[in-house]
Formats: sequence, C-alpha cells, structure tokens
Amino acid sequence: MIGILGGGQLGRMLAMAAARLGMRTHIFCPDPDSPAFEVTPHKTVAAYDDEAALAAFADAVDVITYEFENVPAATAEFLAARKPLRPGANALAISQDRLAEKTFLASKNIPVASYRAIESLTDLEAAIAALGLPAVLKTTRLGYDGKGQRVLRTPQDAASAFAALEPKPLVLEAFVPFEKEISVVVARNAGGEVKSFDAAENVHTNHILHTSTVPADIAPGVEKHAAMLAKVIVVALDYVGVLGVEFFVVPGEERPSLTVNEIAPRVHNSGHWTEAVCLTDQFEQHIRAVLGWPLGDPARMADVVMENLIGDAVNTVPGEIDGNTQAHLYGKAEARPGRKMGHVNRITRRR
Amino acid sequence: MIGILGGGQLGRMLAMAAARLGMRTHIFCPDPDSPAFEVTPHKTVAAYDDEAALAAFADAVDVITYEFENVPAATAEFLAARKPLRPGANALAISQDRLAEKTFLASKNIPVASYRAIESLTDLEAAIAALGLPAVLKTTRLGYDGKGQRVLRTPQDAASAFAALEPKPLVLEAFVPFEKEISVVVARNAGGEVKSFDAAENVHTNHILHTSTVPADIAPGVEKHAAMLAKVIVVALDYVGVLGVEFFVVPGEERPSLTVNEIAPRVHNSGHWTEAVCLTDQFEQHIRAVLGWPLGDPARMADVVMENLIGDAVNTVPGEIDGNTQAHLYGKAEARPGRKMGHVNRITRRR
Repeated sequence: MIGILGGGQLGRMLAMAAARLGMRTHIFCPDPDSPAFEVTPHKTVAAYDDEAALAAFADAVDVITYEFENVPAATAEFLAARKPLRPGANALAISQDRLAEKTFLASKNIPVASYRAIESLTDLEAAIAALGLPAVLKTTRLGYDGKGQRVLRTPQDAASAFAALEPKPLVLEAFVPFEKEISVVVARNAGGEVKSFDAAENVHTNHILHTSTVPADIAPGVEKHAAMLAKVIVVALDYVGVLGVEFFVVPGEERPSLTVNEIAPRVHNSGHWTEAVCLTDQFEQHIRAVLGWPLGDPARMADVVMENLIGDAVNTVPGEIDGNTQAHLYGKAEARPGRKMGHVNRITRRR
Repeated sequence: MIGILGGGQLGRMLAMAAARLGMRTHIFCPDPDSPAFEVTPHKTVAAYDDEAALAAFADAVDVITYEFENVPAATAEFLAARKPLRPGANALAISQDRLAEKTFLASKNIPVASYRAIESLTDLEAAIAALGLPAVLKTTRLGYDGKGQRVLRTPQDAASAFAALEPKPLVLEAFVPFEKEISVVVARNAGGEVKSFDAAENVHTNHILHTSTVPADIAPGVEKHAAMLAKVIVVALDYVGVLGVEFFVVPGEERPSLTVNEIAPRVHNSGHWTEAVCLTDQFEQHIRAVLGWPLGDPARMADVVMENLIGDAVNTVPGEIDGNTQAHLYGKAEARPGRKMGHVNRITRRR
C-alpha cells in the first residue's frame, strides 16, 4: 500500500501508475473533492497537521510519497519517523525554499541565475545595483505558476513589489535572456540507477505551462548537458523518485548554455508526454523508484507535443480531438479559468 | 459514472481507462476481493440476481458495461430497462451460447467449424458420422479457458464425454487443422465508426493464452480478411464497444483461409498488447464507444509480444524483467496455478 500526500491530478496519475503495477494506494489530502480520491478506495481527508490522522495514515501504508513540494516540513518529519518517505524530507526542504535551492545548486557548480537574498528594501536596492534590471523579485516559499513574483523593470518598481510580496524573505533573480525553456524529468532509485527522459521544450502562457514538445529543438550537446546536470542534482540529493528540472537555454557566442531555473521533487507537468509514447512513463518510473524496483526504460517511441487543457479548453475533448491525439482528463468538476483540467498528447511523427 | 458488471482484471483495466478520460466508475461484483475494487471508491458487492442491489446500481450510474460474457440474461434485461447497457443484451445472448453464436455467424456467411447440436448420445453418434474424428464436444454455455470441452479421438470416447459434460445441450465441432491462431480486437461506436487493432498471433498453453505477437506472421491479405470479418460481425450485431474475434488460420492450396473460432463481447486478453504501443488501447477504445465518443486511433508504434503471467510466473516481476518490457499486474493476492496474475508487453522492434 503506497501512501500519497496530496490528491491533485499528479497524485491521481501516480495512483493509476501504482495500480498498473498491482499496488494499492491511499491518498491523504484535506480537499474532499481531490481528483485522486476517484481512483482508489483508500483515503484520508484531513489537514496536513492533523497528527492523529497522519499517524493512522502511516500505519495503513508501507511507504509514503507526495505529489506536491509544499508538504509542511513538520508533516514530512512526522511521517518519515514512521514509514519510509520517498523522496526524502531533504529534497522537500531544498525545493520549498528558493534560497535553499539556489544555494544547493550553486554549491554543486550548477549554473543558476545570479541572485540575492532580500530581507529589506535596502537589500533590494543593493541587489538591483548588483544584478541590474530587469530582474525578478520572488517569495522564497509557496510560489508556483507565476504567483508570488514580480518583474522589476525600473527602480521605481522596487518599493511596491517589495510591499506586495509576502512572506519575507524574498529573493531577487537576475533576468535570464533565454532563447527557450527546456526541462528534463529524471529518475533515481535507491540502488543509484539514474535514467532521464528526453528533454522537452516548454512554452508557458500566463506563467502556466502551455505546451511541451519532444524532441526539444536543441543541439545534442545541449540535451546531453541538461541530462548530465539533472543527474548531478539527483545524485547530490541522494534522491529516490522522479525529479523535474527546468532550464533556461541561453544563446552564446559559440554555443548555447544552460541555467537551471527550478527543480521540483515530484512528477512534472512537462513530463506528461511520457504517458503517450514511452514504455515506462514518469508516473510509473516514480512508483518504481519509491518501491525500490529497477527503473524502467525511458526511451520514447514517437515525437509528441503535450498541450495542457486549461479552464474551458477541456471542452474540446472529445469533439475537437483528432486521431493522432491522446486525451487525459483529471475528472475535476469545475473548469475554472487557469485551472489545469487535463492534457492532450499529440503524436507529431511516428518513428 | 460508468457502471461495470464484473470486477476481474478486465473490469479493473476498463476502470483505469475510464479514469484517464476523467470518468468515474462503479463496479458491481459478488466477489469481495475483486481486483477492480482497488481502482475506484464506488462498488456494490452483491449477487447478479439481487434486484434491489441492481436497481440501486442502475440509479447510481449513467451507462453500464460489462467485462465478462456470462452476465445472466435476466440481469442484462433488468439493467437495460433502466440505463443504457453497452454492448447490448443481444451481443451477450449470442456470445453466451455456442449454438447461437455459430448460427449467427453462419447466417452472415462467416466461416465457422462445421458443427452439430447434440441433445442425446444418438445425436452425438450421428454427428460423429457426419463430421468425422477427431472432433471437439463442448457445452454450449459457460465454458472458457478449456473447461467444458472434450476432444473425441475414437468413437469409444463419445459416451463418457457425453456423460461428463453438463449442462446439455452440447455442440460437436469438427476439428480444424489450423496452422496458427490469430485474433482481431475490433471496436464500433453508436455512430457506426469501426476501427480494429492489428491482428495478433496467439499461442495457448493448457487452453490458456500464453503469448500474443504483433504483427502476426500472416500475409497482408489474410490480415485484411480477418479485419473485414470482424467488421461484418460488429455491424451485424449493431454492436457498441470492443469485441474480440478469435480465428483459426487454415492452410490452403493457394492461400490460407480463416475460420472464426469464437467471439467475445468484451475487451480481450489477446488485446492487452495495445496498452504498451497504441495511442488508444483497447480499454480506452471500449470506454469511448460506451460513452458515445469518437473512436481513437488504433495504430501501433512498435512491434510487441504480450505474455500472460500465470500463477507464480507473476514473481518474475520486477527482478527478471528487462528494460524493453512493460509489466502490468492485477493486484490479486493469491498466485494460484492457472490464475491470470498479470501480463508483460515486450517491445520486439521499435519502428
């Protein structure tokens, strides 16, 4: 019985992959309408700080994983003391805090955007002087899909942005003049096996992922380098599970270079394409790692473009979907604006 | 909410495909340990003749389908009067009774093994005279995986075989000198769309499917003919859903010919390969048809061999499984001899 913290679509898809391997799953989530509650009969509807519920949950399962990186540290600690938590609390701590993340990456000589920690407006003014403008001011915790950040274009933007963003501290990141964004979804198991899926080229709309295209239109050397950086990260974290690494591809005089934008200690939206064209998709790969199994083959069988179905775009399925397209809907009742309702994978070239 | 009669692995896989399309499922099955109960929170554990339970089930769902062909006719009738039952009761009636099946197929000029209805030992002796030996004596109802049949090799075999097989009536089928067995899994929706998956070449061990190999090693003309016969069947039945057609390939002077062995009004073991290499697998195709959606693309992305994991063969997963292999386990607790515990799909050639 695999325990999954979080009941959104990622938890739902993890539970479905676990079922394909004959495993049972138990979802723990405070939201009674969690999409993942519909793919297993075992659930706990409780807050992440409800220790009695967490203890019963830990008793009921053999191993615990999670589908979102903002699992409270106290929750992770409480559970990890009772059952194996994979990936571990360390990966959570690093990914939850942008400063911790950048410090960690920089310590491994992984290129990241230049940055400064910001506790006060004075810090911010000094940082702007050091990094230049434009720059991006971000909260260090709880930001996602464009929330919790402000782009600063002129020095006059600083004060209002600083006031608007809570909680402190913040981080100022130099603007990265990227030509494209790519990501690598990488897996590592306890035996130290590391396998990554092919890099995807990602396009965001309103800070939300719109499409992921595989193969990415990048030189083989760039793709290899991205895979190598992803490997360094999971090895350095002694990581068990699937991790998503988002990169900026920055043009260079001789060749493009890579900067790591973010890491996510979970299955990743930019990896949903694997479900359509890989023998082992990212969800199964994560479950294999969590179970202590050998990793599966990440090779892909076709070229593909994943497109998110946001809000009422979900209504294009099935009527506006052609034969080359695989649809995956998350079973959410309300198609609210900006809400991830599903995705489609379109085969662009069969190999 | 899709209601599924039957909670075995086929129902489990149908429920998982329905979840991928964002649909909820409710499983109705008398067996409290049904594999399908682990992939949805909605279930009814009751006998198929429990009218109160059936009525509540029908109330709770929008459409009903089934994963096994021996749904009692009264159950099908009771439910179909309340909610759409797809495939319909007609397909069940024909598939449940070998005589009805053969009569139906013969009426459409579909080649079947020569046969005679057997009510008495006298019938059997006359039938043996007409069809020759060897021949196969079968019950007309409830047989599967080799149960409810006897091969007659000499006239002396007749009496004991007749006595052993219940219930009557029986059917005697002429032995078909096949060189191989193939199957086609075909789908039809209410709009009349028909799509079939590539033919699989099937090898049985102890009457249970062992492997399905795609592509089948047959001439293109034979494959086209099989697909055509499968289409004739689903059109003649005004069928909605996925149907499996098993064929004998019989050598001939100029070219091989096809004889239909059996039809099954459900997703089929010889179609499990679709899960690994098709954008739309047989389970999703069945759900699409049941929902009234357009059918998906059945084209395959690679060559593949499916192998059933029977009994303790299931223990070869994961340790003895290589990277080219996708495993699917059904979550059954007890690996009894002859029990279908899972299957693996092995890519033999990427295209």
